[in-house]
Amino acid sequence: MKKNILVIPGDGIGPEVTTWGKAALEKIAEIFGHEFNFEEALMGHAAIEVTGEPLPDETLEKARQSDAILFGAIGHAKYDNDPSLKVRPEQGLLKIRKELGLFANLRPILLFDELLQASSIKPEILRGTDILFFRELTGDVYFGEKTRSEDRNTASDLMIYHRYEVERIAHKAYQAAQQRNKRLCSVDKANVLESSRLWRETVQEIAKQYPDVETEHMFIDNAAMQLIKNPKKFDVVLTANLFGDILTDEASQIAGSMGMLASASVGESTGFFEPIHGSAHDIAGKDLANPLASILSAALMLEIGFGLKEEAKLLVDTIDQVLKEGFRTHDIADQSTNRFKVLGTAEMGKLVLK
Amino acid sequence: MKKNILVIPGDGIGPEVTTWGKAALEKIAEIFGHEFNFEEALMGHAAIEVTGEPLPDETLEKARQSDAILFGAIGHAKYDNDPSLKVRPEQGLLKIRKELGLFANLRPILLFDELLQASSIKPEILRGTDILFFRELTGDVYFGEKTRSEDRNTASDLMIYHRYEVERIAHKAYQAAQQRNKRLCSVDKANVLESSRLWRETVQEIAKQYPDVETEHMFIDNAAMQLIKNPKKFDVVLTANLFGDILTDEASQIAGSMGMLASASVGESTGFFEPIHGSAHDIAGKDLANPLASILSAALMLEIGFGLKEEAKLLVDTIDQVLKEGFRTHDIADQSTNRFKVLGTAEMGKLVLK
Ligand SMILES: CC(C)[C@H](C(=O)O)[C@@H](O)C(=O)O
Ligand SMILES: CC(C)[C@H](C(=O)O)[C@@H](O)C(=O)O
Repeated sequence: MKKNILVIPGDGIGPEVTTWGKAALEKIAEIFGHEFNFEEALMGHAAIEVTGEPLPDETLEKARQSDAILFGAIGHAKYDNDPSLKVRPEQGLLKIRKELGLFANLRPILLFDELLQASSIKPEILRGTDILFFRELTGDVYFGEKTRSEDRNTASDLMIYHRYEVERIAHKAYQAAQQRNKRLCSVDKANVLESSRLWRETVQEIAKQYPDVETEHMFIDNAAMQLIKNPKKFDVVLTANLFGDILTDEASQIAGSMGMLASASVGESTGFFEPIHGSAHDIAGKDLANPLASILSAALMLEIGFGLKEEAKLLVDTIDQVLKEGFRTHDIADQSTNRFKVLGTAEMGKLVLK
Repeated sequence: MKKNILVIPGDGIGPEVTTWGKAALEKIAEIFGHEFNFEEALMGHAAIEVTGEPLPDETLEKARQSDAILFGAIGHAKYDNDPSLKVRPEQGLLKIRKELGLFANLRPILLFDELLQASSIKPEILRGTDILFFRELTGDVYFGEKTRSEDRNTASDLMIYHRYEVERIAHKAYQAAQQRNKRLCSVDKANVLESSRLWRETVQEIAKQYPDVETEHMFIDNAAMQLIKNPKKFDVVLTANLFGDILTDEASQIAGSMGMLASASVGESTGFFEPIHGSAHDIAGKDLANPLASILSAALMLEIGFGLKEEAKLLVDTIDQVLKEGFRTHDIADQSTNRFKVLGTAEMGKLVLK
């Protein structure tokens, strides 16, 4: 198989983890005889520093030409501390999602048995959890009109949904549920928000086309609670952009660490694969980051982007093996025992490749 | 002390739990020689059934005349299943919050040692947690303009904040932090939302007036994660209406159950005290609900509403005692052992009063 892959390392720990996601893809190509051609491009703070813009045209052009994109992370303390800055790294990520039509963000909560102990949640609550989130990615309050009054004392963001936006992601989520445990939970705030009432109505309609899938509707506040109270009850979770952002980060605690979760954004053409963790500038460059989410992003690219199931499985199994052997990065090492061999980013990356 | 208290039982399990909150107030009045006069009023589905409106004028009038309000819960399955219904129970709650100027919703995460085991989170992660949430309650996407297009295919809600709304609740939160552990975490999504950037800017300004309090700003997605990863790191949490709704429900898992948490809404005049749990219509009328959150709401009324610290403490200590003696309602009973004596709503209520 011949594929063009664009690598966008981004900010913070992005570059150091993406190195290993890319290396994993190279290794897979070598083993299975595929031809993966790599290009690199800038986005976020890294791009602002060089070009003044968070998403340079050149990056967008390369992205459009690619079969898949491996992304690192975005964001920088400078902007977080100064809300008045006009040009911001995250605008690059939002723009590329919108421009490439990446409306469906898939976030599987993959539970490595070996990491059950690393979670703050009790192992008996977690065991058996297997959730696939479908987060809508190109609508909602993320993309609605923003205003700031002239006196700067009033600010607003429009939370808005169109029926077709809900329909297209609902279909994807239901199709996935059919392949899994045939349960779908749609999360909204329909008791308060009009956009959520449109969401719920639309999902109720689409549900009729998938009579083999059991549908539940849940309010976001309740979902945030149920997710840690009883994560096993969820199979596919379908939700809007903002609620999905919150719920999936929360769910990362289920997997023991954000450092272990990857996401796939798909839609109209190319796919976009990234760790769900952020740029973590506080540990950037210190060889402390966990490269496994980037390697798992590569696995998602192989599976969802290219349909290469066997190749993806090899990566996941290898990570499982490495964890079984007791190797950990800092974020997933239980500090209270010395059963684990704690590795830096690069050592862990090398080990998986070997 | 002489006080006029309005009791609004509301929907679902509201009436059966509020009975015990009210009874607790009567008992306290008797013991300490206060004069509490009670009135009752309708709100929510209960009010719609009788008057056609979720918040009848009469209820609002009585509320304005009261020194404090004890509320139960709101909501009904009928409306949840039919997003197109125009008159909805929750409108009553939102309207009374707005009309009474209840802009600050305080949600203390009170951890009873005896309930550490009831949480899905590991006891060693929880122990020592003591968080006070300040949720803004009369602004945000809850109250911004709602639209639905004529073809019904587009719906929106305006997420909007004015600087003074952020300022007044920030002052309350900082003042509380000064009386506590002098740490304040403000939660927003300033990397994406303009209203959050106004929020962050404003909190940064107010922070300067409280140099003895350590301020941290956190994105909502990260906060949803940190809250279960390391709840002990939080002291006062300050956040907007929607984010507060989500985070406090999530935090209820820390306390072992939603059935154990109460909230106080204060602002311009009278105070409003309620359990944070919902109407739970699935268990309504079955004597399964936990009345302790309503009794704790009564305790918050005594403490925050009337400044009666000793009286409030008596209620909290009594609950603590009852838990120590092994009594539980269903929601907080660990089913895997038979160490506990499981009681219905009424038995638990009576026991606390005794
Ligand atoms: C960086 C930020 C804009 C982004 C989001 O909120 O979508 C991130 O949190 C994510 O979840 O991908
Ligand atoms: C019932 C609902 C409108 C309400 C809210 O979202 O504010 C509830 O969830 C709460 O937290 O008090």
